[in-house]
Amino acid sequence: MTSTTENPVRNGVDTATLFATLDAVKANPDIARFQFRATNTWLSGTHNRSTIDDFFGAEQAMQHKKVTTIEADHPAVLVGEDNAPTPVEFLLHAIAACLTAGVANVAAARGVDLTKVTSTVEGDIDLLGIFGLSDGSVRNGYQQIKVTFHIEGDADDETLRRLVEQSRKRSAVYDVLTNPTPVVIDVVTG
Amino acid sequence: MTSTTENPVRNGVDTATLFATLDAVKANPDIARFQFRATNTWLSGTHNRSTIDDFFGAEQAMQHKKVTTIEADHPAVLVGEDNAPTPVEFLLHAIAACLTAGVANVAAARGVDLTKVTSTVEGDIDLLGIFGLSDGSVRNGYQQIKVTFHIEGDADDETLRRLVEQSRKRSAVYDVLTNPTPVVIDVVTG
Repeated sequence: MTSTTENPVRNGVDTATLFATLDAVKANPDIARFQFRATNTWLSGTHNRSTIDDFFGAEQAMQHKKVTTIEADHPAVLVGEDNAPTPVEFLLHAIAACLTAGVANVAAARGVDLTKVTSTVEGDIDLLGIFGLSDGSVRNGYQQIKVTFHIEGDADDETLRRLVEQSRKRSAVYDVLTNPTPVVIDVVTG
Repeated sequence: MTSTTENPVRNGVDTATLFATLDAVKANPDIARFQFRATNTWLSGTHNRSTIDDFFGAEQAMQHKKVTTIEADHPAVLVGEDNAPTPVEFLLHAIAACLTAGVANVAAARGVDLTKVTSTVEGDIDLLGIFGLSDGSVRNGYQQIKVTFHIEGDADDETLRRLVEQSRKRSAVYDVLTNPTPVVIDVVTG
Protein backbone atom coordinates (compact mmCIF):
# COMPACT_ATOMS: atom_id res chain seq x y z
CA MET A 1 0.00 0.00 0.00
CA THR A 2 2.86 2.42 0.67
CA SER A 3 4.73 1.69 -2.51
CA THR A 4 4.89 4.16 -5.37
CA THR A 5 1.84 4.59 -7.53
CA GLU A 6 1.47 5.31 -11.23
CA ASN A 7 -0.94 8.19 -10.66
CA PRO A 8 0.14 10.15 -7.57
CA VAL A 9 -2.87 12.50 -7.68
CA ARG A 10 -6.25 10.76 -7.84
CA ASN A 11 -9.62 12.23 -6.82
CA GLY A 12 -7.71 15.36 -5.87
CA VAL A 13 -5.78 13.31 -3.30
CA ASP A 14 -1.99 13.46 -3.52
CA THR A 15 -1.42 9.79 -2.85
CA ALA A 16 2.37 10.13 -2.87
CA THR A 17 2.15 12.68 -0.04
CA LEU A 18 -0.51 10.57 1.71
CA PHE A 19 1.78 7.52 1.75
CA ALA A 20 4.78 9.66 2.72
CA THR A 21 2.77 11.06 5.63
CA LEU A 22 1.91 7.56 6.81
CA ASP A 23 5.59 6.61 6.62
CA ALA A 24 6.55 9.73 8.59
CA VAL A 25 4.04 8.86 11.33
CA LYS A 26 5.35 5.29 11.46
CA ALA A 27 8.85 6.69 12.00
CA ASN A 28 7.71 9.14 14.69
CA PRO A 29 4.27 8.39 16.19
CA ASP A 30 4.42 11.59 18.31
CA ILE A 31 3.65 13.71 15.24
CA ALA A 32 0.18 12.12 15.17
CA ARG A 33 -0.88 13.85 18.39
CA PHE A 34 -3.20 16.71 17.52
CA GLN A 35 -5.34 19.17 19.42
CA PHE A 36 -8.12 20.99 17.61
CA ARG A 37 -9.72 24.11 19.10
CA ALA A 38 -12.69 26.43 18.83
CA THR A 39 -13.63 29.56 20.74
CA ASN A 40 -17.26 30.56 21.11
CA THR A 41 -18.94 33.84 22.02
CA TRP A 42 -22.56 34.24 23.06
CA LEU A 43 -24.34 36.93 21.03
CA SER A 44 -27.96 36.97 22.28
CA GLY A 45 -30.53 34.36 23.20
CA THR A 46 -29.59 31.07 21.56
CA HIS A 47 -27.42 32.82 18.96
CA ASN A 48 -23.65 32.43 19.26
CA ARG A 49 -20.53 32.38 17.11
CA SER A 50 -17.46 30.13 17.03
CA THR A 51 -14.04 30.89 15.63
CA ILE A 52 -11.76 28.15 14.33
CA ASP A 53 -8.19 29.14 13.69
CA ASP A 54 -5.18 27.48 15.29
CA PHE A 55 -4.47 23.90 16.26
CA PHE A 56 -1.57 21.77 17.44
CA GLY A 57 -0.10 18.92 15.43
CA ALA A 58 3.11 17.37 14.14
CA GLU A 59 4.76 18.60 17.35
CA GLN A 60 4.13 22.27 16.62
CA ALA A 61 1.62 25.11 16.76
CA MET A 62 -0.25 25.28 13.47
CA GLN A 63 -2.80 27.56 11.90
CA HIS A 64 -5.47 27.14 9.25
CA LYS A 65 -4.93 29.02 5.98
CA LYS A 66 -7.84 31.23 6.98
CA VAL A 67 -9.88 31.91 10.13
CA THR A 68 -13.41 30.46 9.99
CA THR A 69 -16.35 31.84 11.93
CA ILE A 70 -19.52 29.78 12.24
CA GLU A 71 -22.73 30.75 13.97
CA ALA A 72 -25.48 28.68 15.55
CA ASP A 73 -28.98 29.49 16.73
CA HIS A 74 -32.35 27.86 17.35
CA PRO A 75 -35.22 28.22 14.87
CA ALA A 76 -38.32 30.25 15.79
CA VAL A 77 -40.27 27.08 16.61
CA LEU A 78 -37.63 26.46 19.30
CA VAL A 79 -37.76 30.04 20.58
CA GLY A 80 -34.69 31.27 18.70
CA GLU A 81 -34.12 33.85 15.97
CA ASP A 82 -33.00 31.28 13.34
CA ASN A 83 -29.85 33.22 12.46
CA ALA A 84 -27.97 29.99 11.71
CA PRO A 85 -28.36 26.19 11.89
CA THR A 86 -28.86 24.52 15.25
CA PRO A 87 -25.88 23.01 17.10
CA VAL A 88 -27.11 19.48 16.37
CA GLU A 89 -27.17 20.13 12.61
CA PHE A 90 -23.41 20.70 12.70
CA LEU A 91 -23.06 17.10 13.90
CA LEU A 92 -24.74 16.00 10.65
CA HIS A 93 -22.31 18.08 8.59
CA ALA A 94 -19.40 16.64 10.60
CA ILE A 95 -20.31 12.99 9.98
CA ALA A 96 -21.00 13.53 6.26
CA ALA A 97 -17.78 15.51 5.80
CA CYS A 98 -15.62 13.00 7.69
CA LEU A 99 -16.96 9.95 5.86
CA THR A 100 -16.73 11.72 2.48
CA ALA A 101 -13.11 12.81 3.00
CA GLY A 102 -12.31 9.24 3.98
CA VAL A 103 -14.02 7.83 0.89
CA ALA A 104 -11.90 10.08 -1.36
CA ASN A 105 -8.68 9.10 0.43
CA VAL A 106 -9.45 5.37 0.45
CA ALA A 107 -10.52 5.44 -3.20
CA ALA A 108 -7.28 7.19 -4.18
CA ALA A 109 -5.21 4.67 -2.22
CA ARG A 110 -7.05 1.81 -3.92
CA GLY A 111 -6.76 3.29 -7.40
CA VAL A 112 -10.47 4.04 -7.82
CA ASP A 113 -11.44 7.21 -9.71
CA LEU A 114 -14.58 8.74 -8.23
CA THR A 115 -16.96 10.83 -10.32
CA LYS A 116 -19.60 11.64 -7.70
CA VAL A 117 -20.03 11.35 -3.95
CA THR A 118 -23.11 12.87 -2.35
CA SER A 119 -24.83 12.06 0.90
CA THR A 120 -27.89 12.96 2.88
CA VAL A 121 -27.90 12.81 6.66
CA GLU A 122 -31.03 12.60 8.80
CA GLY A 123 -30.99 12.88 12.58
CA ASP A 124 -34.09 11.91 14.56
CA ILE A 125 -34.49 13.63 17.89
CA ASP A 126 -37.37 13.75 20.37
CA LEU A 127 -37.13 17.10 22.14
CA LEU A 128 -39.03 15.81 25.18
CA GLY A 129 -35.53 15.01 26.44
CA ILE A 130 -34.01 18.47 26.28
CA PHE A 131 -37.28 20.07 27.36
CA GLY A 132 -37.06 18.03 30.56
CA LEU A 133 -40.55 16.65 29.88
CA SER A 134 -39.57 13.00 29.62
CA ASP A 135 -39.71 10.53 32.50
CA GLY A 136 -36.07 9.79 31.71
CA SER A 137 -36.80 7.35 28.90
CA VAL A 138 -36.14 9.91 26.14
CA ARG A 139 -32.50 10.87 25.64
CA ASN A 140 -31.42 14.45 24.99
CA GLY A 141 -29.58 13.73 21.76
CA TYR A 142 -30.31 12.04 18.46
CA GLN A 143 -32.03 8.69 18.73
CA GLN A 144 -30.53 7.76 15.38
CA ILE A 145 -28.49 9.32 12.60
CA LYS A 146 -28.88 7.90 9.10
CA VAL A 147 -26.38 8.63 6.34
CA THR A 148 -27.23 7.69 2.74
CA PHE A 149 -24.38 7.84 0.24
CA HIS A 150 -24.66 8.03 -3.53
CA ILE A 151 -21.35 7.06 -5.09
CA GLU A 152 -20.20 6.78 -8.67
CA GLY A 153 -16.78 5.85 -10.01
CA ASP A 154 -14.81 3.47 -12.18
CA ALA A 155 -15.30 0.42 -10.00
CA ASP A 156 -18.00 -2.18 -9.43
CA ASP A 157 -20.73 -1.73 -6.84
CA GLU A 158 -19.05 -3.92 -4.26
CA THR A 159 -15.75 -2.03 -4.54
CA LEU A 160 -17.56 1.31 -4.17
CA ARG A 161 -19.46 0.05 -1.10
CA ARG A 162 -16.21 -1.10 0.48
CA LEU A 163 -14.81 2.43 0.19
CA VAL A 164 -17.56 3.65 2.49
CA GLU A 165 -17.06 0.74 4.87
CA GLN A 166 -13.30 1.41 5.11
CA SER A 167 -13.94 5.12 5.60
CA ARG A 168 -16.37 4.32 8.44
CA LYS A 169 -13.77 2.10 10.10
CA ARG A 170 -11.28 4.99 10.18
CA SER A 171 -13.66 7.87 10.78
CA ALA A 172 -12.95 10.12 13.76
CA VAL A 173 -16.46 11.61 13.76
CA TYR A 174 -18.16 8.21 13.43
CA ASP A 175 -16.20 7.06 16.48
CA VAL A 176 -17.11 10.14 18.54
CA LEU A 177 -20.80 9.80 17.70
CA THR A 178 -21.14 6.05 18.18
CA ASN A 179 -18.88 5.64 21.20
CA PRO A 180 -18.65 7.59 24.47
CA THR A 181 -16.23 10.51 24.38
CA PRO A 182 -15.26 12.20 27.66
CA VAL A 183 -16.33 15.87 27.75
CA VAL A 184 -14.91 17.88 30.65
CA ILE A 185 -16.55 21.23 31.42
CA ASP A 186 -14.84 23.94 33.49
CA VAL A 187 -16.43 27.23 34.50
CA VAL A 188 -14.65 30.48 35.33
CA THR A 189 -16.92 33.24 36.67
CA GLY A 190 -16.67 36.96 37.37
CA MET B 1 -41.32 27.74 36.57
CA THR B 2 -44.10 28.09 33.99
CA SER B 3 -45.87 30.97 35.70
CA THR B 4 -45.78 34.47 34.29
CA THR B 5 -42.61 36.48 34.66
CA GLU B 6 -42.03 40.19 35.19
CA ASN B 7 -39.49 40.45 32.39
CA PRO B 8 -40.57 38.23 29.48
CA VAL B 9 -37.44 38.92 27.41
CA ARG B 10 -34.16 38.32 29.23
CA ASN B 11 -30.76 37.62 27.66
CA GLY B 12 -32.51 37.87 24.31
CA VAL B 13 -34.67 34.90 25.30
CA ASP B 14 -38.43 35.38 25.08
CA THR B 15 -39.25 33.55 28.30
CA ALA B 16 -43.00 33.92 27.84
CA THR B 17 -42.76 32.08 24.50
CA LEU B 18 -40.31 29.60 26.02
CA PHE B 19 -42.76 28.67 28.78
CA ALA B 20 -45.69 28.65 26.32
CA THR B 21 -43.71 26.23 24.12
CA LEU B 22 -43.11 23.91 27.06
CA ASP B 23 -46.83 24.00 27.86
CA ALA B 24 -47.69 23.24 24.23
CA VAL B 25 -45.36 20.22 24.24
CA LYS B 26 -46.87 18.99 27.50
CA ALA B 27 -50.30 19.16 25.87
CA ASN B 28 -49.13 17.35 22.70
CA PRO B 29 -45.82 15.49 23.07
CA ASP B 30 -45.85 14.56 19.35
CA ILE B 31 -44.82 18.09 18.39
CA ALA B 32 -41.46 17.44 20.05
CA ARG B 33 -40.43 14.90 17.40
CA PHE B 34 -37.91 16.54 15.08
CA GLN B 35 -35.72 15.42 12.23
CA PHE B 36 -32.75 17.56 11.23
CA ARG B 37 -31.04 17.09 7.87
CA ALA B 38 -27.93 17.93 5.91
CA THR B 39 -26.89 17.12 2.36
CA ASN B 40 -23.23 16.89 1.44
CA THR B 41 -21.39 16.99 -1.88
CA TRP B 42 -17.81 15.92 -2.45
CA LEU B 43 -15.77 18.60 -4.26
CA SER B 44 -12.21 17.24 -4.54
CA GLY B 45 -9.84 15.38 -2.27
CA THR B 46 -10.92 15.89 1.34
CA HIS B 47 -12.87 19.04 0.44
CA ASN B 48 -16.67 18.85 0.56
CA ARG B 49 -19.70 21.05 1.19
CA SER B 50 -22.88 20.56 3.21
CA THR B 51 -26.19 22.34 2.80
CA ILE B 52 -28.55 22.79 5.72
CA ASP B 53 -32.04 23.95 4.84
CA ASP B 54 -35.21 22.06 5.77
CA PHE B 55 -36.17 20.02 8.79
CA PHE B 56 -39.24 18.38 10.28
CA GLY B 57 -40.77 19.43 13.58
CA ALA B 58 -44.02 20.33 15.31
CA GLU B 59 -45.72 17.79 13.03
CA GLN B 60 -44.86 19.65 9.82
CA ALA B 61 -42.19 20.31 7.22
CA MET B 62 -40.17 23.35 8.26
CA GLN B 63 -37.43 25.42 6.71
CA HIS B 64 -34.68 27.62 8.09
CA LYS B 65 -34.97 31.36 7.38
CA LYS B 66 -31.97 30.95 5.09
CA VAL B 67 -30.04 28.10 3.49
CA THR B 68 -26.60 27.55 5.05
CA THR B 69 -23.67 26.01 3.23
CA ILE B 70 -20.64 24.83 5.20
CA GLU B 71 -17.47 23.33 3.86
CA ALA B 72 -14.90 21.01 5.39
CA ASP B 73 -11.41 19.96 4.39
CA HIS B 74 -8.18 18.63 5.86
CA PRO B 75 -5.19 20.91 6.46
CA ALA B 76 -2.03 20.53 4.37
CA VAL B 77 -0.30 18.61 7.18
CA LEU B 78 -3.07 16.02 6.77
CA VAL B 79 -2.79 15.98 2.98
CA GLY B 80 -5.69 18.34 2.29
CA GLU B 81 -6.00 21.81 0.74
CA ASP B 82 -7.16 23.48 3.99
CA ASN B 83 -10.14 25.15 2.32
CA ALA B 84 -12.18 24.90 5.53
CA PRO B 85 -12.02 23.47 9.07
CA THR B 86 -11.77 19.71 9.55
CA PRO B 87 -14.90 17.66 10.23
CA VAL B 88 -13.86 17.11 13.87
CA GLU B 89 -13.60 20.86 14.50
CA PHE B 90 -17.32 21.19 13.77
CA LEU B 91 -17.92 18.90 16.74
CA LEU B 92 -16.18 21.50 18.93
CA HIS B 93 -18.39 24.27 17.54
CA ALA B 94 -21.47 22.08 18.12
CA ILE B 95 -20.76 21.40 21.81
CA ALA B 96 -19.88 25.05 22.57
CA ALA B 97 -22.96 26.32 20.71
CA CYS B 98 -25.34 23.84 22.35
CA LEU B 99 -24.12 24.50 25.90
CA THR B 100 -24.09 28.27 25.34
CA ALA B 101 -27.66 28.35 23.99
CA GLY B 102 -28.71 26.31 27.00
CA VAL B 103 -26.95 28.65 29.42
CA ALA B 104 -28.83 31.63 27.95
CA ASN B 105 -32.18 29.81 28.16
CA VAL B 106 -31.64 28.52 31.70
CA ALA B 107 -30.41 31.94 32.89
CA ALA B 108 -33.50 33.61 31.42
CA ALA B 109 -35.80 31.06 33.06
CA ARG B 110 -34.05 31.61 36.40
CA GLY B 111 -34.11 35.40 36.16
CA VAL B 112 -30.35 35.83 35.73
CA ASP B 113 -29.12 38.59 33.42
CA LEU B 114 -25.96 37.51 31.60
CA THR B 115 -23.38 40.02 30.44
CA LYS B 116 -20.79 37.67 28.92
CA VAL B 117 -20.55 34.01 27.96
CA THR B 118 -17.46 32.83 26.13
CA SER B 119 -15.92 29.41 25.89
CA THR B 120 -12.91 27.64 24.51
CA VAL B 121 -13.05 24.03 23.40
CA GLU B 122 -10.03 21.76 23.03
CA GLY B 123 -10.21 18.29 21.51
CA ASP B 124 -7.27 15.92 21.89
CA ILE B 125 -6.90 13.32 19.18
CA ASP B 126 -4.14 10.85 18.37
CA LEU B 127 -4.25 10.29 14.63
CA LEU B 128 -2.55 6.90 14.90
CA GLY B 129 -6.13 5.66 15.11
CA ILE B 130 -7.46 7.04 11.82
CA PHE B 131 -4.13 6.35 10.10
CA GLY B 132 -4.60 2.68 10.96
CA LEU B 133 -1.19 2.67 12.62
CA SER B 134 -2.37 1.76 16.11
CA ASP B 135 -2.49 -1.78 17.49
CA GLY B 136 -6.13 -1.06 18.29
CA SER B 137 -5.45 0.74 21.56
CA VAL B 138 -5.83 4.23 20.03
CA ARG B 139 -9.39 5.23 19.14
CA ASN B 140 -10.22 7.07 15.92
CA GLY B 141 -11.95 10.00 17.61
CA TYR B 142 -11.19 12.51 20.32
CA GLN B 143 -9.69 11.06 23.46
CA GLN B 144 -11.09 13.99 25.40
CA ILE B 145 -12.91 17.24 24.75
CA LYS B 146 -12.47 20.05 27.27
CA VAL B 147 -14.81 23.05 27.39
CA THR B 148 -13.86 26.09 29.49
CA PHE B 149 -16.59 28.66 30.07
CA HIS B 150 -16.15 32.27 31.15
CA ILE B 151 -19.44 33.60 32.45
CA GLU B 152 -20.44 36.98 33.85
CA GLY B 153 -23.86 38.12 35.02
CA ASP B 154 -25.89 39.51 37.92
CA ALA B 155 -25.66 36.40 40.07
CA ASP B 156 -23.15 34.85 42.46
CA ASP B 157 -20.50 32.41 41.28
CA GLU B 158 -22.42 29.35 42.42
CA THR B 159 -25.59 30.42 40.59
CA LEU B 160 -23.59 31.05 37.39
CA ARG B 161 -21.91 27.66 37.66
CA ARG B 162 -25.28 25.98 38.08
CA LEU B 163 -26.45 27.49 34.79
CA VAL B 164 -23.74 25.56 32.99
CA GLU B 165 -24.52 22.39 34.92
CA GLN B 166 -28.22 22.59 34.06
CA SER B 167 -27.39 23.32 30.42
CA ARG B 168 -25.13 20.25 30.35
CA LYS B 169 -27.94 18.11 31.77
CA ARG B 170 -30.26 19.12 28.93
CA SER B 171 -27.73 19.36 26.09
CA ALA B 172 -28.43 17.33 22.96
CA VAL B 173 -24.84 17.61 21.70
CA TYR B 174 -23.33 16.71 25.09
CA ASP B 175 -25.48 13.58 25.08
CA VAL B 176 -24.48 12.59 21.54
CA LEU B 177 -20.77 13.06 22.29
CA THR B 178 -20.68 11.37 25.69
CA ASN B 179 -23.08 8.50 24.97
CA PRO B 180 -23.34 6.08 22.05
CA THR B 181 -25.59 7.26 19.21
CA PRO B 182 -26.58 4.79 16.48
CA VAL B 183 -25.30 5.84 13.05
CA VAL B 184 -26.72 3.85 10.13
CA ILE B 185 -24.93 4.11 6.77
CA ASP B 186 -26.55 3.15 3.49
CA VAL B 187 -24.81 3.20 0.12
CA VAL B 188 -26.41 3.59 -3.29
CA THR B 189 -24.07 3.10 -6.26
CA GLY B 190 -24.17 3.57 -9.99
